[in-house]
Amino acid sequence: RQQWRVAVLPGDGIGPEVMAQTERVLAALAERDGLDLTATGFGWPSHAWHQQHGEIAPPDYLQTLAGFDAILLGALGDPGPTSNPDRYLLSDADSLAPLLDIRKHFDQWACERPCRPLPGAPRYLADARAAEIDMLVIRENSEGEYVGQGGRLAPGTEREIVTQTAVFTRRGTTRIIRHAFEQARLRAQQRRQDSRVRDFGGRDSQVCLVTKRNALKFWGEMYTEVFAEVSADYPDVATHHELVDAACMKFVTRPWDFDVVVASNLHGDILTDLAAVLNGGMGVAPSCNLNPADRHCPPMFEPTHGSAPDIAGQDIAGPTAMLLTAAMMLDWMGEEDPAARRASARLRSAVAADLAAHGDESRGTAAVGAAVLAHLQDSASGV
Amino acid sequence: RQQWRVAVLPGDGIGPEVMAQTERVLAALAERDGLDLTATGFGWPSHAWHQQHGEIAPPDYLQTLAGFDAILLGALGDPGPTSNPDRYLLSDADSLAPLLDIRKHFDQWACERPCRPLPGAPRYLADARAAEIDMLVIRENSEGEYVGQGGRLAPGTEREIVTQTAVFTRRGTTRIIRHAFEQARLRAQQRRQDSRVRDFGGRDSQVCLVTKRNALKFWGEMYTEVFAEVSADYPDVATHHELVDAACMKFVTRPWDFDVVVASNLHGDILTDLAAVLNGGMGVAPSCNLNPADRHCPPMFEPTHGSAPDIAGQDIAGPTAMLLTAAMMLDWMGEEDPAARRASARLRSAVAADLAAHGDESRGTAAVGAAVLAHLQDSASGV
Ligand SMILES: CC(C)[C@H](C(=O)O)[C@@H](O)C(=O)O
Ligand SMILES: CC(C)[C@H](C(=O)O)[C@@H](O)C(=O)O
Repeated sequence: RQQWRVAVLPGDGIGPEVMAQTERVLAALAERDGLDLTATGFGWPSHAWHQQHGEIAPPDYLQTLAGFDAILLGALGDPGPTSNPDRYLLSDADSLAPLLDIRKHFDQWACERPCRPLPGAPRYLADARAAEIDMLVIRENSEGEYVGQGGRLAPGTEREIVTQTAVFTRRGTTRIIRHAFEQARLRAQQRRQDSRVRDFGGRDSQVCLVTKRNALKFWGEMYTEVFAEVSADYPDVATHHELVDAACMKFVTRPWDFDVVVASNLHGDILTDLAAVLNGGMGVAPSCNLNPADRHCPPMFEPTHGSAPDIAGQDIAGPTAMLLTAAMMLDWMGEEDPAARRASARLRSAVAADLAAHGDESRGTAAVGAAVLAHLQDSASGV
Repeated sequence: RQQWRVAVLPGDGIGPEVMAQTERVLAALAERDGLDLTATGFGWPSHAWHQQHGEIAPPDYLQTLAGFDAILLGALGDPGPTSNPDRYLLSDADSLAPLLDIRKHFDQWACERPCRPLPGAPRYLADARAAEIDMLVIRENSEGEYVGQGGRLAPGTEREIVTQTAVFTRRGTTRIIRHAFEQARLRAQQRRQDSRVRDFGGRDSQVCLVTKRNALKFWGEMYTEVFAEVSADYPDVATHHELVDAACMKFVTRPWDFDVVVASNLHGDILTDLAAVLNGGMGVAPSCNLNPADRHCPPMFEPTHGSAPDIAGQDIAGPTAMLLTAAMMLDWMGEEDPAARRASARLRSAVAADLAAHGDESRGTAAVGAAVLAHLQDSASGV
């Protein structure tokens, strides 16, 4: 493909603001790099749409999205002040439902969240080696803890019992683990090209499996078996296992030791939020949901951050995570389209230049957008 | 009670080494502070016992433990090198079973892991405010994700399906949340005495509930309802809610904002490992499992760290976490016994003096024990 139709869903809270800057930047890149990209914006899913139409999105919104090559999402949800559980319960699960529905409908079974801090991004760790962090967390995105199975017996009474069941399939487990090994190989290849080879006990890439198999036995056993099975096909890739509690700890004490990390839906959710911190926080952490086996399932690109309703509408939310998310989308397009590859490289260097110059200085949303745009122009004029 | 019978279970790996130093120190304290404490050591549960007797512990070991006031545990498990899943699978779940069995048998439904870094302990966060961290993570220890329910359908085949079910009761939820509020009050009272009052929007303590209610709906709803219900009885305590992914993130970006944190078994496991890092790592993180409603259920005190078999038998494991775990035990005894209170204060100041002098300098296990012992003597001679 050399023509790209992108569905743009700004969503709730700060979503529309950071998306507006991203659309400006994408338009400039399209012009500059001969990228044929059409962005079509939608007011749904969102709380605003719900207020007007009594539903979070039109009933046929998934069919509408099926007509696009990719989905670019701002942020969903309006949890309200977290100190007010009532307001939260009223709206949160419902307002986030489209996120989980889109992942499910388009079989986006892999969630990829890269972590490689850019110079200038905020640093939370004391150790200088934090600058060397270079990992990719791959989260199983279609089953496991998030299947929504369970129920409440005698709700509200003293004898209430609640179950919440996670369901894992061998098929789902095999494909996500295999994808992790494939990504490890690709990353090693990229590092060889960039002359930054890493060493994992004599191999140049590594996959770390995360489970809690000493307490959550059934799925821990299955994950471990599949991991051993799949890894036999990748003798060039080193393997490692961590229990989820130890993995979280090591994400703080020695994150530079990891390469590719693969985990279940819930564990992946937790690990990617920690990885976002290592990247410099939610302000700079991109994410994508995709079906690696079928490029014609539209993937969804979204920043790791939420809708941050408390700072919405004030022109203070940083658009950097959204911009880096757009760069991930361009990388994905770039697997088929050289123009998208050029655009991604240009966007990444503009964002890096902006971060290096300003760090996490507080500037307006639009001001950051304008500064990144200016860096794109610099690059256009040969600087 | 003014007489204490303690069952000492050194366990596996580094357990026996760190326990030996702790027993020396406890004996010295007993003598110095008039504490009536009898420590009885057992070779089980352990891999060594298994090798000799073909079982990890005698069949009646729980009855034996029932005859004691408290259990002091070193560490269990011999997971082997984590890069070797086979060896791990053979032994791990089985060798840790007594840990979970003891928690269950003595209805130790609360796991408390305090986090307040001592000067000299390793620092992982860049921000200087890390020195101000002062929180208590309370983990539900009897149900939830750890009930061991689930199974494998068609194991090993392509169509395999695995379930893992978490079970929560309203009774279990209510008691742990109520315990969190009680602890918040106690902590605030202690801080008032020490003139270090904190402010949480006009209140002097806070409980933060952690769930994943936007994705794990059933138990998230129940936890939220119970939290609202119980908090109504504690108008003096501020309340807060975090999703587990955001909570883990904030444990790295703003941990000084937390006071008491209450979470489910699995989420609590993850959060307490992160809290251990904030304390200065596994080398200094104590933990206890107890039944707050019944002081005659023997509680179990254990460091958060594991058995670290790779460094066992080399006299290099730090005993500090084990010593601080013994101090937690003395605090618990101190609720009835002034001699135990004196001993705890003396032990804590000896450990603090040692840490302040040596930080995380590597010294032998026995050397640290001797140094702490010397600090106790200093204090005995009036220094
Ligand atoms: C909003 C929530 C359901 C979602 C998730 O847990 O998947 C979010 O935390 C994420 O990581 O994308
Ligand atoms: C060993 C394991 C089963 C245990 C747990 O998860 O409870 C440990 O991690 C802990 O935190 O005490």
